[in-house]
Amino acid sequence: MHLDIAVLEGDGIGPEVVAQSIKCLRSVEETFGHSFTFKKGLIGASAIKQTGSPLPKETLKLCKNTDATLFGSLGLPEFDDDPKAKVWPEQGLLKLRKKLGLFANIRPVKVFPSLIKQSPLSKTQVKHTDLVIFRELSGGIYYGEKSFNQDNNSATDTCTYTEAEISRITHLAFKSARSRKKKVTLVDKANVLETSRLWRRVVQSISESYPDVTLNCLFIDNAAVQMILNPSQFDVILTDNMFGDILSDQGSVIAGSIGLLPSASVGLEHAMFEPIHGSYPDAAGKNIANPVASILSVAMLLQHFKMNEESDAVVAAVLKSFSKKIVTPDILGSSKYGTNYVGDFIANNIM
Amino acid sequence: MHLDIAVLEGDGIGPEVVAQSIKCLRSVEETFGHSFTFKKGLIGASAIKQTGSPLPKETLKLCKNTDATLFGSLGLPEFDDDPKAKVWPEQGLLKLRKKLGLFANIRPVKVFPSLIKQSPLSKTQVKHTDLVIFRELSGGIYYGEKSFNQDNNSATDTCTYTEAEISRITHLAFKSARSRKKKVTLVDKANVLETSRLWRRVVQSISESYPDVTLNCLFIDNAAVQMILNPSQFDVILTDNMFGDILSDQGSVIAGSIGLLPSASVGLEHAMFEPIHGSYPDAAGKNIANPVASILSVAMLLQHFKMNEESDAVVAAVLKSFSKKIVTPDILGSSKYGTNYVGDFIANNIM
Ligand SMILES: CC(C)[C@H](C(=O)O)[C@@H](O)C(=O)O
Ligand SMILES: CC(C)[C@H](C(=O)O)[C@@H](O)C(=O)O
Repeated sequence: MHLDIAVLEGDGIGPEVVAQSIKCLRSVEETFGHSFTFKKGLIGASAIKQTGSPLPKETLKLCKNTDATLFGSLGLPEFDDDPKAKVWPEQGLLKLRKKLGLFANIRPVKVFPSLIKQSPLSKTQVKHTDLVIFRELSGGIYYGEKSFNQDNNSATDTCTYTEAEISRITHLAFKSARSRKKKVTLVDKANVLETSRLWRRVVQSISESYPDVTLNCLFIDNAAVQMILNPSQFDVILTDNMFGDILSDQGSVIAGSIGLLPSASVGLEHAMFEPIHGSYPDAAGKNIANPVASILSVAMLLQHFKMNEESDAVVAAVLKSFSKKIVTPDILGSSKYGTNYVGDFIANNIM
Repeated sequence: MHLDIAVLEGDGIGPEVVAQSIKCLRSVEETFGHSFTFKKGLIGASAIKQTGSPLPKETLKLCKNTDATLFGSLGLPEFDDDPKAKVWPEQGLLKLRKKLGLFANIRPVKVFPSLIKQSPLSKTQVKHTDLVIFRELSGGIYYGEKSFNQDNNSATDTCTYTEAEISRITHLAFKSARSRKKKVTLVDKANVLETSRLWRRVVQSISESYPDVTLNCLFIDNAAVQMILNPSQFDVILTDNMFGDILSDQGSVIAGSIGLLPSASVGLEHAMFEPIHGSYPDAAGKNIANPVASILSVAMLLQHFKMNEESDAVVAAVLKSFSKKIVTPDILGSSKYGTNYVGDFIANNIM
């Protein structure tokens, strides 16, 4: 198969981890006889510095004209520290998600048996955790009207959801549950929010067409507690953009390091693959960033294009790196292996 | 001192836990020579059933005309399960907070040394945790305009904050930090939300009048991770209504049981004291609910009225119950003590 892949390295540790993913894709190319081309584009703080915009037009065009996008991470503290910053690097990512129509962010959270000691939670709690979060990605308070009123110094954000926006991701979530443990948990705040009440109505009505899947509903505050106390109760979690942002980062702790978790963002025409973690500017350039989240995002990319054997081979190579303890310092504390070394090991073990 | 106290037991386990708090206040009365009168009012699902409204006028009047309100918990599943429910029991609480002008919800999270085994997190992580969350309680998306548009089946919630709303709670948070570890962490989502950007500007500018207090800012998704990985890094956490709801429930896990944590909600004229936990209908009437969160809310009430010695005496009695293992089944697993027995023990040990 031939794939044109847009590569947006972004800021901080983005370029380093993406470089390892490309190594892995090169290895898949060779081993399985595919051909991938990689085309780089600017995004985030690096794009602001070079072009003044966090998402240059060329980058958007690149992503639209390729088969998939491989994304690193973004954000630099020089922007965070300026409360008046008009252009946050993050705006580039938000605009890209919207323009590519990426409405579902899929974030699997799995505990790797060989890394179970790594989890800050007790073994019994996390042992059987294998859940996937379906986070709505192109609606809600992220994209609603925003305003600032100088007269009384007040600011407003608006959260809107339409039935259509809720439906499309709900179907994805239920279809996924069908091939898993047949359980969907809707996380919302229906006792307070009108949008949550619409989510409940729409999701409950759609659930009737999936009689083999059980639906239950949890308030976000309770879900945040359950995610720590008993994460293995979950199968598919379905939630809105903001709650999904919080819950999935929180869920990442279960696995033991945010440096382990991949994600796929999909729409009708485009798809993007990125680690859950941020740009960790403090770690940038030090060859200590964990490349596994980005490499597992490559596995999700391969699966997206039905290259299941190839995807499994990438996951197997990652698991081998765990069992051989070829891991970056965030894992198992005492490891001395760098980003590059781990990337090479995994790429060389894709077979 | 004489205090008139409104008592809103609410739903589920509310009546049971509040009954123990009243015992403790009776004991404080005797031991320290105060006089308290208790006046009951209806709220929540019980109020809906009896009056059709989750907050009858008489209840609001009662709370306005007393010195403080002791609150239980609310919500019953019969309402949660109906997605079309027009009246959620929770609306009563939200309206009450607003009408009483309770703009700051103060939620301390402390790990009790005798219960450290109880925490699902590792000992080293939680050992020194002693933080307090200042959650804005009468603004934000909880109280913004809500609408439902039948034409396209869409729903909207609005989140608005004014500088004035942010200022008043910010000053409370910084004053509290002054008498503690001198650190305030603002939790927001300033890379996405206009309201968060206003929070940052206002809080950063107010922080200049507290040069002895350090301010730092965290995005909510990162804060949810840090709360699990390293909660002892926090002193005072300042945040908006929705983020505070999620983060404080999540924080409650650190202590080992949501049945342990109290809260105070304060405004310029009124104050209300309530456990963080919900109504747990499944546990209602079984004499198994943990009364400690409600009893520690009484300690916060006493402190609010400068009865510091009395407040300390209540806390000491609670600690004694822990060290004697006179605790409900949620604590230490194997305990056989009921709500009433634990309440009696604590009340009898206030001295
Ligand atoms: C960078 C930021 C805008 C983004 C988000 O909030 O969506 C990130 O936290 C994520 O989860 O991908
Ligand atoms: C009952 C509910 C409306 C309430 C809230 O969200 O504020 C509760 O979760 C709380 O934290 O006091």
